[in-house]
Parts: sequence; C-alpha cells; structure tokens
Amino acid sequence: MAGNSFGQLFRVTTAGESHGPGQLAIIDGLPAGLELSVDDLLPDLRRRRPGQSALVTQRQEEDLPEILSGLFEGRTTGAPLSILIRNTDARSKDYESLRDTFRPGHADYTWQSRFGRRDHRGGGRSSARETVARVAAGAVARKLLATAGIAVLGWVDSVGGITLPASGEDMYTREEVEASPTRCPHPETAGRMTELIETCREEGDSIGGTAVITATGLPPGLGEPVFDKLRADLAKGLCSLPAVMGVEFGAGFSAAEARGSAFQDAIEHAGPEGLRTRSNRHGGLLGGLSSGMPLRLRCAVKPTSSIPMAQQGAGSDGSPKEVCVTGRHDPCLLPRFVPIAEAMVLLVLADHWLRARSAAL
Amino acid sequence: MAGNSFGQLFRVTTAGESHGPGQLAIIDGLPAGLELSVDDLLPDLRRRRPGQSALVTQRQEEDLPEILSGLFEGRTTGAPLSILIRNTDARSKDYESLRDTFRPGHADYTWQSRFGRRDHRGGGRSSARETVARVAAGAVARKLLATAGIAVLGWVDSVGGITLPASGEDMYTREEVEASPTRCPHPETAGRMTELIETCREEGDSIGGTAVITATGLPPGLGEPVFDKLRADLAKGLCSLPAVMGVEFGAGFSAAEARGSAFQDAIEHAGPEGLRTRSNRHGGLLGGLSSGMPLRLRCAVKPTSSIPMAQQGAGSDGSPKEVCVTGRHDPCLLPRFVPIAEAMVLLVLADHWLRARSAAL
Amino acid sequence: MAGNSFGQLFRVTTAGESHGPGQLAIIDGLPAGLELSVDDLLPDLRRRRPGQSALVTQRQEEDLPEILSGLFEGRTTGAPLSILIRNTDARSKDYESLRDTFRPGHADYTWQSRFGRRDHRGGGRSSARETVARVAAGAVARKLLATAGIAVLGWVDSVGGITLPASGEDMYTREEVEASPTRCPHPETAGRMTELIETCREEGDSIGGTAVITATGLPPGLGEPVFDKLRADLAKGLCSLPAVMGVEFGAGFSAAEARGSAFQDAIEHAGPEGLRTRSNRHGGLLGGLSSGMPLRLRCAVKPTSSIPMAQQGAGSDGSPKEVCVTGRHDPCLLPRFVPIAEAMVLLVLADHWLRARSAAL
Amino acid sequence: MAGNSFGQLFRVTTAGESHGPGQLAIIDGLPAGLELSVDDLLPDLRRRRPGQSALVTQRQEEDLPEILSGLFEGRTTGAPLSILIRNTDARSKDYESLRDTFRPGHADYTWQSRFGRRDHRGGGRSSARETVARVAAGAVARKLLATAGIAVLGWVDSVGGITLPASGEDMYTREEVEASPTRCPHPETAGRMTELIETCREEGDSIGGTAVITATGLPPGLGEPVFDKLRADLAKGLCSLPAVMGVEFGAGFSAAEARGSAFQDAIEHAGPEGLRTRSNRHGGLLGGLSSGMPLRLRCAVKPTSSIPMAQQGAGSDGSPKEVCVTGRHDPCLLPRFVPIAEAMVLLVLADHWLRARSAAL
Repeated sequence: MAGNSFGQLFRVTTAGESHGPGQLAIIDGLPAGLELSVDDLLPDLRRRRPGQSALVTQRQEEDLPEILSGLFEGRTTGAPLSILIRNTDARSKDYESLRDTFRPGHADYTWQSRFGRRDHRGGGRSSARETVARVAAGAVARKLLATAGIAVLGWVDSVGGITLPASGEDMYTREEVEASPTRCPHPETAGRMTELIETCREEGDSIGGTAVITATGLPPGLGEPVFDKLRADLAKGLCSLPAVMGVEFGAGFSAAEARGSAFQDAIEHAGPEGLRTRSNRHGGLLGGLSSGMPLRLRCAVKPTSSIPMAQQGAGSDGSPKEVCVTGRHDPCLLPRFVPIAEAMVLLVLADHWLRARSAAL
Repeated sequence: MAGNSFGQLFRVTTAGESHGPGQLAIIDGLPAGLELSVDDLLPDLRRRRPGQSALVTQRQEEDLPEILSGLFEGRTTGAPLSILIRNTDARSKDYESLRDTFRPGHADYTWQSRFGRRDHRGGGRSSARETVARVAAGAVARKLLATAGIAVLGWVDSVGGITLPASGEDMYTREEVEASPTRCPHPETAGRMTELIETCREEGDSIGGTAVITATGLPPGLGEPVFDKLRADLAKGLCSLPAVMGVEFGAGFSAAEARGSAFQDAIEHAGPEGLRTRSNRHGGLLGGLSSGMPLRLRCAVKPTSSIPMAQQGAGSDGSPKEVCVTGRHDPCLLPRFVPIAEAMVLLVLADHWLRARSAAL
Repeated sequence: MAGNSFGQLFRVTTAGESHGPGQLAIIDGLPAGLELSVDDLLPDLRRRRPGQSALVTQRQEEDLPEILSGLFEGRTTGAPLSILIRNTDARSKDYESLRDTFRPGHADYTWQSRFGRRDHRGGGRSSARETVARVAAGAVARKLLATAGIAVLGWVDSVGGITLPASGEDMYTREEVEASPTRCPHPETAGRMTELIETCREEGDSIGGTAVITATGLPPGLGEPVFDKLRADLAKGLCSLPAVMGVEFGAGFSAAEARGSAFQDAIEHAGPEGLRTRSNRHGGLLGGLSSGMPLRLRCAVKPTSSIPMAQQGAGSDGSPKEVCVTGRHDPCLLPRFVPIAEAMVLLVLADHWLRARSAAL
Repeated sequence: MAGNSFGQLFRVTTAGESHGPGQLAIIDGLPAGLELSVDDLLPDLRRRRPGQSALVTQRQEEDLPEILSGLFEGRTTGAPLSILIRNTDARSKDYESLRDTFRPGHADYTWQSRFGRRDHRGGGRSSARETVARVAAGAVARKLLATAGIAVLGWVDSVGGITLPASGEDMYTREEVEASPTRCPHPETAGRMTELIETCREEGDSIGGTAVITATGLPPGLGEPVFDKLRADLAKGLCSLPAVMGVEFGAGFSAAEARGSAFQDAIEHAGPEGLRTRSNRHGGLLGGLSSGMPLRLRCAVKPTSSIPMAQQGAGSDGSPKEVCVTGRHDPCLLPRFVPIAEAMVLLVLADHWLRARSAAL
C-alpha cells in the first residue's frame, strides 16, 4: 500500500537506495515449475547497465544478481522469488553537496515534503537506480510469458525531434534494435541521434526523446474491466518510471484530430485467437483489453535533469540556489529507458496473463 | 482484484451495466464527519448527464442518486458510503441487433474473449454508462478535498484539431468553462468547435479531441514512491476511462524534443507549502509526486466509436460484417468527458491525500 | 483497505447500517457463466432471518434480495454481482435512548472512539444486521463451489454447556440440522437446548454456545502459504463475525494437552484427490492448507449482549449508567449463527478455490 | 496476493526457504523518522533462536540480520526497510530421505498438491524457519509501537495440561517470563513443564501447549469494521503460524457456557483514553475493536510433528510408509512460540495503529 509493490497476481515488491547496500526484488505469485536461473536475468540487466556504451553514464555497476529464494533444482517452486543486486560503484561523496540542495527536476524537494527527510545520496530511493530491480523482475516475467508465446520489444523512436522515418505501425527485430547503442533500429536515424547526444554531452546538456514498446502474441481479452484495464495498468506502470512525461496507445494523440469514420480499424477477422484489423490505430487495445493485434505504445521521456550546466534549484531553506550536477549521468535517457520500459510492460502483462486465467468457470 | 475497485484508502467499488437495474458506487475509507447530502452529488452528475445540450447524446437519464449507507444526520460516519443510480432510459431493443455483432472500436470482442459471454445491450458493463458511478464518487471526493483547499478543474482543449489559442499554462474558472456546452473556455474557439461537432453529427460521423485537467491547492509530497507515484495513479485512472488514447503531464510529449537546460523549471521558492517555479513544464509533479505548483495534465480522446455511418465490424462467427450504430450517441465525447475525467482525478487525489497522512511518525 | 471488503479473487464488499435504507453486497471476481437467480439466495437468507422460530428475535425482516448487476439471461457475466436487501422493520425509536449510552459488550464505545461519531440506531454498521449481506454473498459462493463438489455444513455443538454427545468427528446432514430450530442435529440434546434458551428468554437473560462448521469435497492444497493459509483466512473470517470469542481447528485446544506420538493422524493414502488419514485430528488442514479430509472447525459464541436485565454500561460522558436493552433480541445467537458462519466459510473457500487455480504453470 | 505479504499500511513481505541462502523481510509503509539499528532486532531474534537452551532444537543459526534498505543516518526514511538473515546451519543431507516422503502432520503433501512440486529440504518454504523473518519485522513493529506506549508480552500458559495456576486475568513482566527457558512466568509450574519436556525428548516424543499474548497501552478504537476487525486480523496472524490449532480472546471458549448477565464486564469508566471495566472477559476487544483494556488472547499449539518415534506417513506414490524424523527438532514448540506469536501480534497492531490514523477528518 505504500507504493513499493506492483501487480496483483504477479506481484513485485522492490526495495533499495542508490547508495545503500543493494537493490531487492521479491516476486510473489510466480507459478511453480518455470525453468529459471541467474543467467536468464543477465541479458536484460546488461541492456540496462551503466557504462554499456559511450552514450550513457560511465558509472560502473556490475549488476550481478543473486537469487535468494523461490528456486529449487532449476525450477520455480511457487514460493516467492527474491533477487538481490548489490550496489558496487556508489560514490556517495559526489553527492555530499546535495544534502542541503533541492535540484530542479528531481524528487529531492517532493520526497523531503513527503517524509520530512530523505537519503540525499544520489536520490536515495527516488534514484533511477531502483529500476535495476524492476529489470531483474521483468526478465523473470519475460521467461514466464515466453511459455505462452508473448514477446515484448521496444526501441527508441525519437531523440530531440530526430524521429524514425515511418513511425506508424512498423515493427523491428531485437537485432535491429541492439545494432546501435542508441537502440534506434534505423541506422541512419541512429547515427543522427548519436551525434546529437554527443553534442549534448559535450555542452553539459541533455536531451529528451520517445520510445515505442510493442508486445506480440497476446491472447485477446487480457485486462480487467473497468479500472484495471490492461491500458490503465500499462499507463500506470510506464508513468511510474522516472522521467516519463506521457504515454499514448496506438494512434495516441493523433486520434484527437481524427473523424470516427476515418479512425476506426476495419475488422477482417475476429476469432478466439485474436482480432485482425486492416490497420492498428487501436494499438492492440479495445475497451482497454488486448485485441490480439500487436500492442503498441509510446512514451515521452524528458531530458535528464542532472546536467553539468548551471541551473536554478533551491537550498534547504527554500531560497534559490545555483546547482551544477557533477556526477556521472546519461546525456540522454532513451537508450537505457528501452529495457526499463520493456520490463514494466512485461510486469503488467505477466500480471494480467495470470489474472485472466481466473475468469472462466 | 477483479478490476472494479480503485484506490487504496479512498477505495471506490462500482457495479452496474448499461441496461441493467442501475449503477452502484461504494466508497470505503471515507473519513467520518464530512458534511454530505445527495445535493452535493447533483452538480457533477448534471454536467455528465446525457441530453444536457444539443451537442451530446439525447438519451434521457435523470441520474438521481440514492445514498444507501454511510450517512447519519448529515455527516459521514466512517462506514462505507454507497450510492445507487437507477437506469431509467434503457432502450434495450435498440441493441438486439448487436447480440451477434462485434462493433469496431468497441469492447464487444475483447469482453467476449475475456469472459466467454457478454451483456450486449449497450455494451453492458463496458458501456460509458458506468462512469456515472465514478462521477458520483468523484463528487464525494471533491467535497472531501475542498476541506483541504484542493480543487480540480478541467476543460476541452481541442476538438478535431481546433485548439485553445494559448494552450501552455493558462488557467480558467468553472464559469468560463461552463459558459459553453462544449466546455471550451475560449468563446471564439468554442464556437468553432460547436460548428465542427454539429457538422459531424449531421454527417453521421464523430470527432476526437483533448481535455486538460488541473488541480490547485495540492500540498507538496502527495504520491507514493515508487510504483504508486501520483503521476502513475493519475495515468492509470485516466487511461481506465473509455476512449482515452493517451495522457501527458505538464509539457508532456513536447519534453521529448527539449534540451535539459531549456526544459528545467527554475525554482524561485521551496517551502513547506510548496514549490514555486518560474514556469510549470513539470506540470506540478516532480519525481512523480506533487510539487505544490498546479497539477496539469492532458488527455487524448478518440472519436466516438458508435456512429451511424457504415463501418466494418464482424459477426459472432468472426467474419466481417457491416455495422451502422443507430442508437443515440455523442458525436464528440469531449464535453461530457470533462466531468468524468475530473472525477477520476478527484478519486486519485482523495486517495493520495489520505495516504500521505499515514507517512509521518 | 478500510475493512469492508473480504477476499482477493472472490472479493466481497458490503455496506449498510441496521436502520439505514438497506444492506448491499458486491462480489467482484465471480467467474462468468455461473447459473444464478434470486431464488438461489433465498434458502440461506431464510435460515438467517429473524422471526424464523420462537427461539430467535421476533423482528420481522423479509430480506428479499434484488440483484442489481452482474447477471444476464440467467448467468453471471464476469461483471461484479451486486445484491441489495432493503431494511424493512427498523424501529429506530427503540434506540433513541442509546444515543448517549455505551452498552456493555457492544461496539458502541469502540466505534465512537474509532470515528468520533456513530449511528447509534441498533448499532448502525456494527449491528449483526450487516451479516445479511454476507449470507447473500455466501449463497453465491455456495452455488459456485457446488460446481466443484464442495459443500459446507454447520450445526450447533453446544449451548450453555449442553453439548452434543459425540463431538469428535461426527458428521450430519442438512436435514438433521434443520430438523430443530436450535440447529442442533441431535434431537434429545436439541430439546434440552430449547428448554435452556427459553428459560433464558423468560429471565431476560441470554446464553452462549459453540458451533461446528465443516466442509467436504475440498481438493488438497487449497490455501496460500505463508500468511494467507486457508486456516488463517478461515480464522479471520470467523473472528470477524459478531460475538465470536474463539475458533479452533480439528482437535483444537485439546491438542495442547497431547503428545505428538498420539496426536498424529496416520496416513492411509495420499493421492491427487486428497489425503486419507485414520483419524482427523488435523481437521482437514496440514501446514494450514486443505488436505482433502473433511475441514472441521469450531467457534465459541458469547451470550447475546443485548438483554433486558439491568447491566452497567456508561453514558456518553464516560460515567457508569444502568442499561436495559428493550429491543427484540435473540436469547441465544447460535441458531442463527450457523448460516452466518457457513457463509463466511463459503466466502473463504470460494476465494481460495479461485486463488489455487492461478498457481500451476 | 500470493500470501507472502501481511498487513495493509504496515505491510510485511517475506521470502526464503529453510535450506536456501536466507530469509528476507521487506516492510513497506514504515513511517519515516523512527530511530532504528540492527541492535533493535537482536533481542527478539535471540529469543526465537534455535539452541538457546536445552529445551529447544540444537540447530545453530546465528540469525544475524543485515538491513539492506530504508535506513539513513540511524533513522527510517519512509522507503521500504529490508532485512536479510542468511541461513548458516542448513544440513540439507538430513532431509534427502524426505524427497519421496509425505510426513504426517506436515505440509509436505498439501504443498506438493498446491504447486505440483516442493523443496523438500527441511520443509522448504513451509518450514518454521520462515518465522525468523516475521520476528525481525516484529521487532521493528515493537520499536514503532513503543513510541505510542504500546507493549506486547506473551508467555507459556500450559504444556501438556500443566497450566499456570491463575490463568484468568493475571499479568507478568518480561523478566518473570524470561527467568525460565520454558517462558512460563510461574517458577514452580515452569519446573514441572521442564520435566515434562525433557521426558518427551528422551522418549523421542513431543508435547503441545498454550501461550497467552497480551498487549497494553492500546488506544481505544483500533481495528477496522467489519471484516478487518482487530480481532479478525489477530486471529489470522496467529493462525498463520505453524502448529497453531486455535485462538481465543478474553474468556474465549468459556464464554460459550456463560449467561449474558454474568458474562458482561461492567463499565466503570469510558473516556477518550479507553474503557475501564471491572473484569476483562472481553479481552480488550469490543465489537472486535480495541477497548483500551489490556488485549489478551490464547493460542493452542500442537505437539511438534517432527519426532524420532516411528509414525505412519506416506511415500510419494501415496502408499503408507513409516517415517522417523531424525533432524534436530524442538520437543515442545511453546518456548520459541512466544516470541514468534508476539511478533505476529506486533505486526497486526502496527498495521492497525497506522490504519486508525487515517480515519478522522
């Protein structure tokens, strides 16, 4: 109830601060009998890891997970699965100056307001460091959903206005996405994004962007009416991620300019295995539940708040104070945002996949 | 857990189908001692009501609520407050042809997939009719939040591309919003929207749009880290509403094109009463918690799916089938969407306002 | 979260006060496709109803339920099922003297402490009247569990020390139980109980007793480790009922005097369909989960607190005050407790039956 | 939802198996600002620890906790507090013979039925080893409740029928309880219990007993009507503990033999600080909520199921099979049950103490 758990039947609880001993995730509700090992967690953790390329923060976190429970002889047991990832490269001293500072764009002030105190070191619990636990749990969800043929794939759609040429209903492969450290699957666009991100880093600035996340293989009818629609829980999961400014599904905001007659996706087939429509403006969601067409959503991510350039924050007495953030930060969050957002989508889908199994008599 | 409840400490459970006996809302967790009567529910219910103007559906629902519990001598008691609104103008016959039809853009097919059956009359539980219970509960939340000086106000921002001139950080009054049946507070723009909506109605078509919802008077620090951020729960609440295609906070998707140095809101003051920034691109949310600046978000609403023009849906055997929806429907959802979206924001804020009271020792 | 909901996947929310307009139950999570009508609710409601015999309160409540949602063409739809039972014989005037009185043994004082106010008429929300909503919901659970061959049956085991001769592992039929208005299935014992209850009524006094509740047909393995064991949720459900002073499972408190070598139930067979043991001291629960042997538990119910004899309560200023309760009350709660306790067991079992379906991959 | 979490606002999630790497507890909802260190956890962990006296199992677990999150500069931050206790003396080989055995009285068979597999080593997740995480979390709850003057104290009331002389409303001190390794505060009775327990150990047998748990300093009105009564959640918490066969409150089962006129506790005073009654048969609970009088409950604990004497269990093929449990086990669970049961009561009270703070406007 205090906000550190997510999901109903596939329920993830996380704990950990940026500069504390480590990050924890407990998954309660994981079905018994799933083959699993630490190796299954590594690919997604590597895709999220700092220092993976020249485009991201140069902090070095190995992010080696230890599974503390829930596994026996290579399979899940139905008991809660818990994962511990120790923090290794936490330079707390970099942050001592932030003890009495509210940085602009950060949770410093709001967290302090909420609890009357805060762990100021690297944002403490409000740091994006906590997403490492989500990614580890998401990797378990990915393994679970794979048994049902469900796959989640995301990519960078735009950086600072540089946008994928055909941003409509195009699909890509994991290989195309991972071919560039930008995680933009279009090489020429990726090149321009790389240049822009490097320019921003050199100027001590940062840049925003958008990411698309898709899911395929979803059976129709995932989602709970009326408050826990699949769309609603996806929106919640994604908007719980740091730096997300908005989310849209299928045609999204462009639907607001459309006429009904032009917007509707003509149905070509509607069977137990899913709906087939001529177009996919509905983004795989009808009435908020999965239709069987590919799920497709887009997130807006703001430019990194921590930048070396001077900005106006406030001191702990509330008065304005110039702030230059000197730690090691991503000039653009998008490349590392993709695996994090994929993880949230995976957590939502795993939960609703389990929930849908309870509905039929 | 089956999706018909919302909120943790201010917990609303709803029930009811479009053409069943009525709509129910139970609020569990409403603090004792709040002055309340049926009259407090009427203004919001009237703003949502069908038939309120020439721009909306001409169905006639009186929507007179009965409070069945939780009230004693004019004040809440701490017991659950329950509200029943009988359905009165349900013309089930209008829908008999839909028994074997999956309409495009509707939940018909996904609901059928989820449960193996459905009440096809007017969408049954998936009908927007269910939002009447949310609006009634939202009116109670409004009364509760008013005791803390918190107010929620929304308006129509755009219809089919016709947009409020200054859509940045402008604020309006309830009177300005209610002056036009469009709920667009800018008279000239409202006039153009009216024309467009009427054209759509005449052509048997529909049109989408956007709405802005704001909240003022929020203390800083509302929201639960890390999954139940205020931003996350707002996104969930709004994306649980019918026809919503996306939601954005503050600068929203435009943040994706911005540089950090230009995007950050310079802090002018940061005290216990809230943050004051020079601009409000952060939309009143930092780290996903309320900053004390006005909360501001925008929703994209698709054009009404039910239109008289012929569209391609499917029959219950899955094959394509032409569909003309002949019931009485809104050519544009936006005017009635405003009170509904306000209600969801009120429900989220009431919940988090109560939750924040539990945090300090 | 405010305590008026019960269960996770079969989730019941109730509302209503003793002298308000009515009692409500909403069941969220009821699987679609269950045949159901109002007639299914009547037998259990009649067994709970006041005025059913000379042994119980002579209040007259017809307790006719109206199903407001969740049903379509005779079957459940997956949407929340809601049931309204209007209060009809609420003589509020009987209670005016209680406005400023804290009765001993009642929730008057504790409810007032909790909320700073209360609806004093007949106990308001704390009245046993609220159990009518549980019984209605329990009848739905009974219908659901019957599809899996699970049946719940309770009876009165003792009244004021008059106890069923063989109280060990005996089983009875519904007919034997309902043959006497005491709901004690042993005619001679039932006769002695009747005499004692009538003596108490004549003397303006009341008397306590115990009830046994059993369930048969349970598959092995119902229950969630470690906090939500079936045993734990049964204990919670039963101890949430008015006047319950304790609950024990199988051999219960007598286990505290036993040696392990004598206490263990020797296993004769252990297959997928359940465990067969020579004795059933474990009461059908091992490790807190169902073993497949009959579930068996016993509740202690205190004597009715509302009695005509003078007792020492307190006034609203806190000072002692003599109280004579002049309303119409049961001299012994046990006969009506049986259907109420059955309902709670049914609600717990329905919930865990649904939960267990989510566990296997 | 999968049963490994407890509480709403003070929410504990645990994980860990008997012979896995360790035991975890995450507390979500712990208020910020509480002074806390690892040292606060040690006294309760020591009272639970194996090997603490000749009366208990001679397994050696150091049970040294590591706090992984939620603490900063000696105070809680509002972020989830997580505690890891590594398993150190897990002799898995002792249990290899149990791979294909269902022991009588154990969760082996029911867990296998529930999940289709199990970690057979020492009971895996169903082992009483998991209570170490509850005790660690309970110690945090104890620290929190101490700030409000609430204290919890339990003792052994009976072992194998040897019972404390005056078992009515007597109270003891921590020192009196801890004076004997039996945790019976009456020296002469404790001596007789010791003899009986040692006899059982020598004979390869085990013995049951009862424990009383009390709480003082509770404000009146703790508890949520109607399902989440304090009494109901206490019953759930205690019946979720291994080996508990029943729980009773105040006069408990003896109330079933009483007349109302004799049973009622005459009220001497009723003020905001609590109720004062001449007797305390109600055990500090009225209408299921705290009255302000001392809370008092009693648990029945069965004899240890794991005993060296031969018993009839079953093989994994379901046929009967003789079982002799040769590991190191407690001949009587009661001495170690006291701190474990105290922990559950502390967790329930901490949760309801936080919940009650949300009720008043």
